[in-house]
Amino acid sequence: MSIRYLTAKLAQQIDEELMNSAGAFSLDQLMELAGLACAQTLAKVYSKEKYPRVLVCCGPGNQGGDGLVAARHLGMFGYEPTIYMPKPGSKDIYKRLQKQCDNMKIKTMPPDAPLDSFRSTLSSTDVILDAIFGFSFKGPVRAPFDAVLPLISSAGKPIVSVDIPSGWDVEKGNEAGVGIVPDVLVSLTAPKEGVRSFTGRHFLGGRFVPKAMEEKFELNLPEYPGFDQIVELPQTEGTQKL
Amino acid sequence: MSIRYLTAKLAQQIDEELMNSAGAFSLDQLMELAGLACAQTLAKVYSKEKYPRVLVCCGPGNQGGDGLVAARHLGMFGYEPTIYMPKPGSKDIYKRLQKQCDNMKIKTMPPDAPLDSFRSTLSSTDVILDAIFGFSFKGPVRAPFDAVLPLISSAGKPIVSVDIPSGWDVEKGNEAGVGIVPDVLVSLTAPKEGVRSFTGRHFLGGRFVPKAMEEKFELNLPEYPGFDQIVELPQTEGTQKL
Repeated sequence: MSIRYLTAKLAQQIDEELMNSAGAFSLDQLMELAGLACAQTLAKVYSKEKYPRVLVCCGPGNQGGDGLVAARHLGMFGYEPTIYMPKPGSKDIYKRLQKQCDNMKIKTMPPDAPLDSFRSTLSSTDVILDAIFGFSFKGPVRAPFDAVLPLISSAGKPIVSVDIPSGWDVEKGNEAGVGIVPDVLVSLTAPKEGVRSFTGRHFLGGRFVPKAMEEKFELNLPEYPGFDQIVELPQTEGTQKL
Repeated sequence: MSIRYLTAKLAQQIDEELMNSAGAFSLDQLMELAGLACAQTLAKVYSKEKYPRVLVCCGPGNQGGDGLVAARHLGMFGYEPTIYMPKPGSKDIYKRLQKQCDNMKIKTMPPDAPLDSFRSTLSSTDVILDAIFGFSFKGPVRAPFDAVLPLISSAGKPIVSVDIPSGWDVEKGNEAGVGIVPDVLVSLTAPKEGVRSFTGRHFLGGRFVPKAMEEKFELNLPEYPGFDQIVELPQTEGTQKL
């Protein structure tokens, strides 16, 4: 049985069931484990010796929160992260996560930094963590991200995307061709329909789905090794050009 | 510079500073990372192939919460944990953590299980995780734990203790001789004064202390390897018989 790729609706439903009164997880818990998995994926592929400077690009939703958690853990691992969050989320949790990064002396670009300044930061970064849009993304890409995504794409730096590469449709992938094409992908909980044809290194994180829920949704998750928080999925040959 | 051993007062202060408005961490976050570190420590020393059945003994305070988180992660790692929490904590977070374990089909003994039943569970377990008392423990050991600790001690099973072996004074250690003497210890954030003379394998978890806080309190923490959540401390020869 191969792993299940989730529709946007199913991803939403699983997320809700994890956090409702039956699932009993708090957003703080899930975000902590998800962000840790993202940081570990990046660290697994891009060593801090060769790729110390990580630009963590965060969106305004929960995926931006995962990005902030990942930035903090990357700081703990010895990387030098810089956070770019041009449209900060309004939830209290993002403010707390941001403060935790501030306490780590992790730099955050001003939200209204001009694109030239972002371009310059891009040029002095070694690897990019794309935590802009997640499984609740619905196109089209709006400002300021309509200008940001092309800059990330053309920077020529390795990119690790979280869950859904930003700009991709959650189910149809990068059909529109406006999305970021990452080198590495870390899917959370289970991969989404849109990344079926992704051909780079693909990891899975979010080791918190109870067996009963996995069976209910027929996720067929792979076994995580030992006590790791991530597992690498077999690479696909891809059925369509990205 | 060697690692600093904390007094009870200092441990309390650091805990508070991590979670006040300046530190900005939530209890959910810290407990998740602490419990994960406990589970990883146990898994590092006792393989699930040889030691599948883990009895997780939880106290009524925050360390019991760490234990519940650890039990869940151990279940995720493929162990068969059983939870013993004879005096369940009243905070809402413990109820949520317990529910998460229930959802994993992790067995919890009834809080009022007779000691004979606990004795029988002890005899059919492979390793014990002692998450009963933490750094806010003040003796003497009261019921029901005054009866529970000797049963754990005399069970002849390997024991992993969290932070402070249960029954030990946070600063004076096992002077009174009523405490559990574990094979493995996982200290959280930084080790406490009372465990200076501990001679077993000693790990450190809680990779969330910002550098500025580490410097302020002169903790001299060791470097964690790679992206691990635990680091093993050098074994001491011990200055007093435990």
